[in-house]
Amino acid sequence: MKTSLLMAALMACTLALPARAETPCCATGDLGLVVERATGSLLVIDRSDRASIGRIEGLGDLSHASLTYSPDERFAFVFGRDGGLTKVDMLTRQIVARTLQAGNSIGGAISDDGRLIAVSNYEPGGVKVFDADTLALVADIPGTSKTIGLVDVPGRRFAWATWDSGEAFMADFSGAEPVLTKLGDVGKNPFDAVLTDDGHTYLIGLFGEKGVTAIDLWDADPKPLRFLQDYGKTEEDLPVYKMPHLQGWAFTEGQYVLPAVGQHELLWVDRDSYAEVARTPMHGQPVFIIAQPGSPYVWVNFATPLNDTVQVVDSRTHQVVKTLTPGKAVLHMEFAPRGAEVWISSRDDNKLMVYDTRSFDVLAEVPANSPSGIFFTARAHQTGL
Amino acid sequence: MKTSLLMAALMACTLALPARAETPCCATGDLGLVVERATGSLLVIDRSDRASIGRIEGLGDLSHASLTYSPDERFAFVFGRDGGLTKVDMLTRQIVARTLQAGNSIGGAISDDGRLIAVSNYEPGGVKVFDADTLALVADIPGTSKTIGLVDVPGRRFAWATWDSGEAFMADFSGAEPVLTKLGDVGKNPFDAVLTDDGHTYLIGLFGEKGVTAIDLWDADPKPLRFLQDYGKTEEDLPVYKMPHLQGWAFTEGQYVLPAVGQHELLWVDRDSYAEVARTPMHGQPVFIIAQPGSPYVWVNFATPLNDTVQVVDSRTHQVVKTLTPGKAVLHMEFAPRGAEVWISSRDDNKLMVYDTRSFDVLAEVPANSPSGIFFTARAHQTGL
Repeated sequence: MKTSLLMAALMACTLALPARAETPCCATGDLGLVVERATGSLLVIDRSDRASIGRIEGLGDLSHASLTYSPDERFAFVFGRDGGLTKVDMLTRQIVARTLQAGNSIGGAISDDGRLIAVSNYEPGGVKVFDADTLALVADIPGTSKTIGLVDVPGRRFAWATWDSGEAFMADFSGAEPVLTKLGDVGKNPFDAVLTDDGHTYLIGLFGEKGVTAIDLWDADPKPLRFLQDYGKTEEDLPVYKMPHLQGWAFTEGQYVLPAVGQHELLWVDRDSYAEVARTPMHGQPVFIIAQPGSPYVWVNFATPLNDTVQVVDSRTHQVVKTLTPGKAVLHMEFAPRGAEVWISSRDDNKLMVYDTRSFDVLAEVPANSPSGIFFTARAHQTGL
Repeated sequence: MKTSLLMAALMACTLALPARAETPCCATGDLGLVVERATGSLLVIDRSDRASIGRIEGLGDLSHASLTYSPDERFAFVFGRDGGLTKVDMLTRQIVARTLQAGNSIGGAISDDGRLIAVSNYEPGGVKVFDADTLALVADIPGTSKTIGLVDVPGRRFAWATWDSGEAFMADFSGAEPVLTKLGDVGKNPFDAVLTDDGHTYLIGLFGEKGVTAIDLWDADPKPLRFLQDYGKTEEDLPVYKMPHLQGWAFTEGQYVLPAVGQHELLWVDRDSYAEVARTPMHGQPVFIIAQPGSPYVWVNFATPLNDTVQVVDSRTHQVVKTLTPGKAVLHMEFAPRGAEVWISSRDDNKLMVYDTRSFDVLAEVPANSPSGIFFTARAHQTGL
């Protein structure tokens, strides 16, 4: 009786889905999207089934693409390098809306109430804000400078920095009209920025000079603070594409963990004092350093040509505790939100590897076309992602 | 065209839902359940719409009931005081399965992989573990003692403490057979326990003697550690029902925030040193102290007869920054996962109040029958909830 009720409900929802949907799905808490850069498509994945359940095509240029989710975990907003902003529906696996909103964009964010989508643009610079329902333009904040490191801040706000002018800004959309505030001069050529998981500190990486800039967003009058005065810019001719993305910085055990630029090392920085507390020699140049939820561990992948390897480091001892070789060209790692397993994209093996984080057993392999970024819907509930 | 596609999808899913469903809903990331104790029912709420969208009835005795969610955020597992374990489907708004698994139960947890439901029992004591799909019994761990403070621990594990014998245990279900380990003797009459949000420390409150016991679950050989040696048991005849639940302890800014037992005060304890760092005089005896995500603030409600009030405290200064009077008998508060708003249950006003956490404006009032606990589906993605 109980089973038949459930089956009836499942079948009803199955029938209601468009024919494109390969597998029915009515709940969305355990879904995810994988960027398939070469084909401009998104693979829809189901964490619980450890399987792909559909594909959404026609997304345009997905190199360095990122995405964010609506609060109901049904829709994703995809930020393409070509300036395309695309809203996709994971249940129907259709593009709901798409706008080519700039010439060259590098990411975006959704407001904490889920109503606004902000996109940071390289060409022509500035930030555009769209209605999350319709993708209608809500605000156009022009800039004379390339925009980098755009993040959502609690209270219907967004923060970002500017490459050319070296400034940071906050836009507040909580009132009738948006209010734009300059947070300060942050240093020469900021190349990326990230918000700590508690929404407290906005961290800005610099390309044009040494050091990292922190801004306390809980302060009534936020001011830039420089730390790690020797960080970055170790070589005059360091190419931009080797600068590690700050989205790859982990926050764990009262520390920031970041890659030593151009070196085979992790740096550990005390979160309160901003002092370097340790270094960990690694297999290669770290790219993403991601904290495993509910554990003392961070998982690290590496820049080409050493990108077949993943290492696991204990944030208490700063020692490598495990080295894995998941496949060719490991580009990204995404944890189940409570940390039980990790999904790893192996681009040149055309597959996703699913590992048990405790036993390091391979739980599943899921075929994918040149997979890069993996994004689970649980991100909808996290600040700054 | 884009709109019509979306509308078609929404309508299709609407038609597929059983007639009981008052409002269509195909995604589940922004849903929640409210315990209506007097009527043994659950109100289904939609955060985005700030509205109730249905009701599930027939849950039995829901006094002190709690619940947890499946990873897909579709199903809830409800732990009733009468020993009833009920699985409900938020999409069809039906009871999927129900078992009266003990005489008197006080809570439960779902394993990090979403496959197992553990229930802690007063009568006859012990812990029972069920298959999350079917509610079939997977393991029966009998105890000679009342079980309290059961939590999920990463790695398909559960931890709990025992009232009569003053012990703590860990059960590991990651292998073919469950492995039970005693974590140690934790003190006289533990009455509740909680796991920190990072899965690191298991904190156990004592009724029979002073102090709080902490166990580092990241340690290879976990050992109980006593701190706050003067905490609790201030009066010999302190009634049990006034002991604050540890689920009401907040973790913020490197501190534990807990109620001073029997007093109108908050205690602030340094997370690393376990030393008391501050006290905050409050309106009444604190019950729940809940950290607002992405902020320095904790929100506090109070024991009867001062339970018409909520206070907001800054965890940096330890000062009250706001006092609100949401209604009669404020029993619980639940934040939108990124902290934009808070839902507050006012039992004797038969309503839920929705506040903007930045402006403190009332955004909505939602009718409910004697509402107590509020649970958003985002809990599915959090360890220890």
